Amino acid sequence: MEVVQVLHMNGGVGETSYANNSFVQQKVITMTKPITEDAITKLYCSTYPEEIAIADLGCSSGPNTFFVVSELIKAVNSVRQKICQKSPEYQVFLNDLPGNDFNTIFRSLSIFQNKLREQLGPGIGPCFFTGVPGSFYGRLFRKNSLHFVHSSYSLQWLSQVPRGLENNKGNIYMASTSPPNVLKAYYEQFQQDFSLFLKCRSEELVDGGRMVLTFLGRRSDDPSSKECCYIWELLAMALNDMVLEGVIEEEKLNSFNIPQYTPSPAEVKYEVEKEGSFSIDRLEVTEVNWNAYQNETDLSDAFKDGGYNVAKCMRAVAEPLLFSHFGEAIIDEVFRRYREIVADRMSKEKTEFVNVIISLKKA
Amino acid sequence: MEVVQVLHMNGGVGETSYANNSFVQQKVITMTKPITEDAITKLYCSTYPEEIAIADLGCSSGPNTFFVVSELIKAVNSVRQKICQKSPEYQVFLNDLPGNDFNTIFRSLSIFQNKLREQLGPGIGPCFFTGVPGSFYGRLFRKNSLHFVHSSYSLQWLSQVPRGLENNKGNIYMASTSPPNVLKAYYEQFQQDFSLFLKCRSEELVDGGRMVLTFLGRRSDDPSSKECCYIWELLAMALNDMVLEGVIEEEKLNSFNIPQYTPSPAEVKYEVEKEGSFSIDRLEVTEVNWNAYQNETDLSDAFKDGGYNVAKCMRAVAEPLLFSHFGEAIIDEVFRRYREIVADRMSKEKTEFVNVIISLKKA
Repeated sequence: MEVVQVLHMNGGVGETSYANNSFVQQKVITMTKPITEDAITKLYCSTYPEEIAIADLGCSSGPNTFFVVSELIKAVNSVRQKICQKSPEYQVFLNDLPGNDFNTIFRSLSIFQNKLREQLGPGIGPCFFTGVPGSFYGRLFRKNSLHFVHSSYSLQWLSQVPRGLENNKGNIYMASTSPPNVLKAYYEQFQQDFSLFLKCRSEELVDGGRMVLTFLGRRSDDPSSKECCYIWELLAMALNDMVLEGVIEEEKLNSFNIPQYTPSPAEVKYEVEKEGSFSIDRLEVTEVNWNAYQNETDLSDAFKDGGYNVAKCMRAVAEPLLFSHFGEAIIDEVFRRYREIVADRMSKEKTEFVNVIISLKKA
Repeated sequence: MEVVQVLHMNGGVGETSYANNSFVQQKVITMTKPITEDAITKLYCSTYPEEIAIADLGCSSGPNTFFVVSELIKAVNSVRQKICQKSPEYQVFLNDLPGNDFNTIFRSLSIFQNKLREQLGPGIGPCFFTGVPGSFYGRLFRKNSLHFVHSSYSLQWLSQVPRGLENNKGNIYMASTSPPNVLKAYYEQFQQDFSLFLKCRSEELVDGGRMVLTFLGRRSDDPSSKECCYIWELLAMALNDMVLEGVIEEEKLNSFNIPQYTPSPAEVKYEVEKEGSFSIDRLEVTEVNWNAYQNETDLSDAFKDGGYNVAKCMRAVAEPLLFSHFGEAIIDEVFRRYREIVADRMSKEKTEFVNVIISLKKA
């Protein structure tokens, strides 16, 4: 969420915004690196394929777009050097919604490729890069054409705001005060979206193909648990204050809901088993501090301001959603208030995001 | 040239500009349609593949980007309906240099896909679109991964300005006054580029795969023939006038050359046979008037002005090249003069571009 790709907005189609906080994204990718490396190594060592087709779903556009792919290629290359195997050819599919800035990705591609070739030496096989625009809640690739799918911090975004949230008043996401039908509507949308995702990928992956998916999620069984909802509740707090002051209409706030679902490991596991195409190799949960810069040295004072950092990250995620619903005028003020609220809470309690990581193999 | 994709500029890498005059591009594509339809129909009927991977090389970004692909898919669909075959899945690779505006292509994709589905009815298989940034004078795709390659009005662009043109003084392209070494340097660059193109594509195409390539070319054996060089000679005329008036430095003009080669059918054939991977199915030559709007009714007065139309088309092609060599200041004046010169010549003689179209099959 910090990490932040707003992949699907109200109504979904065609609208995209995304934000790519390089520091936080790198941190999460680095945390999941042992799992992705393990998965691609197992894939490679099972058949030593002459070509490996890798898809990164929700690639965004920024310094980290190539980061995962480069780690995956390095992992394969390291193994194949040890066993003196000829390098495979790599086909890399970078996917995000059509509104993503693919131009920027493509224009930085040759710099990335040269750097990769330098790092990996002359034995490395050719790497072909393509951009694939479209929602991953639908088919994106030919049948049996992928070996490895990666997606980080994208799958918590739903294809649309669930229907039937009319009575989620005063809230903008699931919250402790949300009525049961709201929690149910969110969960059903997640089930529908994620099972469709699994079905599409199972058609596109070769037998034995693998996926590593990282969700912004939660540990608790309670979908309105503080660990996943608190960050949005604080934003709702800023918005509600502005309703009280007459800056925002109450009706406008009541009809605003975030199209996200932060699943528990059990919920992810349940959908995978129900869909039936994949076996679960690993399922893990980790935490990352709201302020990913915490504990980092050599940072300027600005980065030491946790409230500032978190508000900035959340703004990158939430601004497009707020903008299209409330208009431009309120944005600065919302995030000024949000920053204060967040800073206050961070000084008083432990604030962390939960990551749910699942490593799958097409059975 | 009218049709206009400046794919490779001085030095090549990373710099791109392109222009896509929808009317002219459509005209050329429509002219070559019987050949492309014939080729993809033969491809489809040879094995009735379950999936067809099509690459359009030099796709540019504009209303015509999807035009060729849509014609190809329609042709296959028409055949498969007649013989009651299930629709194949289509994988479409849209390629151009990394500087191309892929964002615009991707953002108009869903409109195009909906239109195509409407036109072709419910039986049509899924069409997966990807953008592939990079020079086609190098590998772009995995081995044996393509069924059909199309390229229109792109392959006359060389990978770079040939070396050794120092004595091509007063000219900006091959001309009747060019010394023999200049013509030789241009031809050798063409040979080197086109044979590399053929080698790369032969690795990427499946056995039996096909290509239809349209060059801006010439009929004559003489590479400095008026039919291909005159349009540039008139631009050189405008530039030389400005040298005489002291607006442009003579040295600056002498070091400017267009990275293009307009081959004859015999030269294209020779390279194909020399490379050896492809058999020639068809090799044809057609003409299109400099002013593609000629003979069209229902046009506003502006479009009836041939000098204006041709200068506009050529400006779209040549401006990036002139801009990077001479700077911005001279551009408007060059094309004001060019428009006058072109209009004068068009009123006095027949002015046509020559298209060389070759249809190939991987042996």
